[in-house]
Amino acid sequence: MNRKMICRTTGNIVLLEAALLALPLAVALAAREWSVAIAFAISIGIALLVGLVLSLMARGADKLIFAREGFVTVALSWVLLSLIGAVPFAVAGCTDGTPISYVDALFETASGLSTTGASVLVPELLSKGLLFWRSFTHWIGGMGVLVLIMAIFPADSGRSIHVMRAEMPGPVVGKLVPRIRDTAKILYLIYIAMTALEIVLLAAGGMPLFDSVLHSFGTAGTGGFGVYSSSIANYSPYIQWVIAVFMLLFGVNFNLYYMILIRRAREAFRSTELWFYLAIVLIASGIIVWNILPTVTSFGEAVRLSVFQVSSYLTTTGYATANANAWPELSRGILFLLMFLGGCAGSTAGGLKLSRVMILWQSVRRSIRQMLHPRSVCAVHHEGKPLDDKTLSGVSAYFALYCLILIILTIALMGLAPAGFDFEMNFSAAVSCFNNIGPAFTHAGDPGAMFAQYGIPEKLLLTAAMLLGRLEIYPLLIAFSPSTWSRKKS
Amino acid sequence: MNRKMICRTTGNIVLLEAALLALPLAVALAAREWSVAIAFAISIGIALLVGLVLSLMARGADKLIFAREGFVTVALSWVLLSLIGAVPFAVAGCTDGTPISYVDALFETASGLSTTGASVLVPELLSKGLLFWRSFTHWIGGMGVLVLIMAIFPADSGRSIHVMRAEMPGPVVGKLVPRIRDTAKILYLIYIAMTALEIVLLAAGGMPLFDSVLHSFGTAGTGGFGVYSSSIANYSPYIQWVIAVFMLLFGVNFNLYYMILIRRAREAFRSTELWFYLAIVLIASGIIVWNILPTVTSFGEAVRLSVFQVSSYLTTTGYATANANAWPELSRGILFLLMFLGGCAGSTAGGLKLSRVMILWQSVRRSIRQMLHPRSVCAVHHEGKPLDDKTLSGVSAYFALYCLILIILTIALMGLAPAGFDFEMNFSAAVSCFNNIGPAFTHAGDPGAMFAQYGIPEKLLLTAAMLLGRLEIYPLLIAFSPSTWSRKKS
Repeated sequence: MNRKMICRTTGNIVLLEAALLALPLAVALAAREWSVAIAFAISIGIALLVGLVLSLMARGADKLIFAREGFVTVALSWVLLSLIGAVPFAVAGCTDGTPISYVDALFETASGLSTTGASVLVPELLSKGLLFWRSFTHWIGGMGVLVLIMAIFPADSGRSIHVMRAEMPGPVVGKLVPRIRDTAKILYLIYIAMTALEIVLLAAGGMPLFDSVLHSFGTAGTGGFGVYSSSIANYSPYIQWVIAVFMLLFGVNFNLYYMILIRRAREAFRSTELWFYLAIVLIASGIIVWNILPTVTSFGEAVRLSVFQVSSYLTTTGYATANANAWPELSRGILFLLMFLGGCAGSTAGGLKLSRVMILWQSVRRSIRQMLHPRSVCAVHHEGKPLDDKTLSGVSAYFALYCLILIILTIALMGLAPAGFDFEMNFSAAVSCFNNIGPAFTHAGDPGAMFAQYGIPEKLLLTAAMLLGRLEIYPLLIAFSPSTWSRKKS
Repeated sequence: MNRKMICRTTGNIVLLEAALLALPLAVALAAREWSVAIAFAISIGIALLVGLVLSLMARGADKLIFAREGFVTVALSWVLLSLIGAVPFAVAGCTDGTPISYVDALFETASGLSTTGASVLVPELLSKGLLFWRSFTHWIGGMGVLVLIMAIFPADSGRSIHVMRAEMPGPVVGKLVPRIRDTAKILYLIYIAMTALEIVLLAAGGMPLFDSVLHSFGTAGTGGFGVYSSSIANYSPYIQWVIAVFMLLFGVNFNLYYMILIRRAREAFRSTELWFYLAIVLIASGIIVWNILPTVTSFGEAVRLSVFQVSSYLTTTGYATANANAWPELSRGILFLLMFLGGCAGSTAGGLKLSRVMILWQSVRRSIRQMLHPRSVCAVHHEGKPLDDKTLSGVSAYFALYCLILIILTIALMGLAPAGFDFEMNFSAAVSCFNNIGPAFTHAGDPGAMFAQYGIPEKLLLTAAMLLGRLEIYPLLIAFSPSTWSRKKS
């Protein structure tokens, strides 16, 4: 394995984090939060140090890398980003003087970067600098930090597709344009433009600029960190609608936006995944409207609440305008189902991704056809194109692995969790973290405060679950399997 | 579709049921339960009538059938068996005069035939005739009624493998010997011999003969219906061990017993599925022993309780010697996981079957290898043989369909169930019925009595789930899909 090249890219990522940390430092300085500013300065120092050491270790690196190096680079980068990104929380602590343990800080940072949005902290007790950094991690993690580095720095070799493939969600990763660097740039430009538009629309609705920026970061990355414990519930209906629509927009495959940009909109609207996505939103919202209508004051409110919650769960964002735990069991069941689906492939959403669900369904149909006509040959189509056997078996294997990890997580949580955490809470905590959603289902009190009650081993386990979910399992699995490190090839 | 041939085989099955019903009729007469005997006589009359009508409709049948006819025959036979088998319950009612509704009777019969063992009745209130019939349905359903008819009647054509394949559990169905009829005979002879051995061993331990027969039926079919609401808890340790061992024996692929019979034991013990099965029993029991040790009086008791419960859940039997709901969450979590696994393929157990789990795991490993070495070709092996792509994608598709049905069942139950049924109860009811286990997890009172509290729609849904699980989804799905009946090919 080309360890030097892994050090080089990982080192660049950490140096990039040092640069990114300058933004919350500036926010802290502007807000005159001196101790918080010092915490960020310390973090920047650590990031620079680690980055330089890694760069020194990478001297004379051979630029040739393969798939394995791509996975390992992505996994190690994300782990390092989380470890260093947690420092400001741990150093600065809460505004009321309560310290934040490093494990809590790590949970919060991994939750941010993985765009989960599960929190063990109370946002009202966080300084502006930390609030900004928390939401900014959503924005960074949404599109992916390795994609960002490819957009900024000249690509090191033609092999960077290995890195991109390891970080981008979805069963098939395509290049929009022949050069990978240009693809990364286009994706980030669309991302920035859409985030900026949401900030403007939220600010126009009377939301303070700071809050608008933070909520737009949270929406763009389909993360879910906000400014208040009440999430979005206390904002005006206009603001709730803006956020609902943008959650849905960020759950769409970004390739479609690129196609619309280059005036191939007709092609974009031919995407079956897009229509499947919209159909799910419509049907799920429709059922929930009918189901919660007796409990709310007007039909309009029922529509707003259900569309918001459906968008939030389906895109795995996790913002809330209602306590869905108090809704009837049918509505809860539907939201629970949406947690698994996730948004479209190539979006910032987590979960299984609709493409995978559609491919799985096609393979079920094929297996029935083959059972009835054993000698027939049937191809599986997706987005109008036949799928090769490798992609197909890859999707099936991913689904099996996904279920296996969920089961292991749930059982481990059941074994570790303190008394009072029942099966539903542990299972939904695992589902929520692994699918990068954020809030979990619990009948016992506040779903937002649930994670804080877990012990240290559970928090570390859920931290791993969030990163596993964001990176779609394989990078971490490969990076931390002994066979990867036993091969002495450099 | 060859409708006449479907009528012919289905008619034979119903006539066979008339013959099988003579056994509980004899038990009722011997116990001087005259009204129960009349109920069985009425059921036999109905079965004869339906069987004759079907046979008349089948006159001049062309014997050529294909896979589709095999699936439809199996599905319709099982539905008819359940509908007619429910009649004695509904006609006779409980011994205290309480009537049994037809829906409850249907639930109980489908639960028996599918070897689930979930009950809506109280065994203490059932006459001997009904108790016998209830457990006898386990025995019939365990090995399969179409396999039985093939063992008894001369095979109608060389195509009966289609019928056998549709009824036998597991991803790959092999013939032991060239003639399908002989395979069916061998399987049933082993089944009868093992059941007889268990009856003798139980009776030798002081259990009344009637109870020994019923519990052996319940063990052989991995069903779980017993004689008391307390299941096996009040019997002696010897009896608990006998039942535990026999549950494990009936969860093994019957092909292995055949191999041992023909002195190819070495080959049988080379089965990786067998070792995987034993490893699961050992590891799961070991963890649970450690976990429950503080709550029981002796180490021996902990071993006995945990091995019994592990065997019961893994083989999807559902007998109980302890209230596992009161065990620590880790033990509950492990038992819950076992519910999905099921026993070996080609056994009477339900669930996913270990072969499938092993094949899924192999395909996960392959997908990781392929990701690391995109140009390599890697075959998936199972039991020492390479698997073809069709079997592999069939297993993956089955798993996806399995998860989909579980999700639909759970959400439907959440929508239908009365207040007080929380997510855990509904989910575990769906898991328990669909995997043919029986008892479900509930913190709220008696798991055995849980199903009786559901309404009529939920009971019908769970009845369908039990049959879907026993027949491994496809037969019912194909039989009740409109496309099957729209093809006018006679």
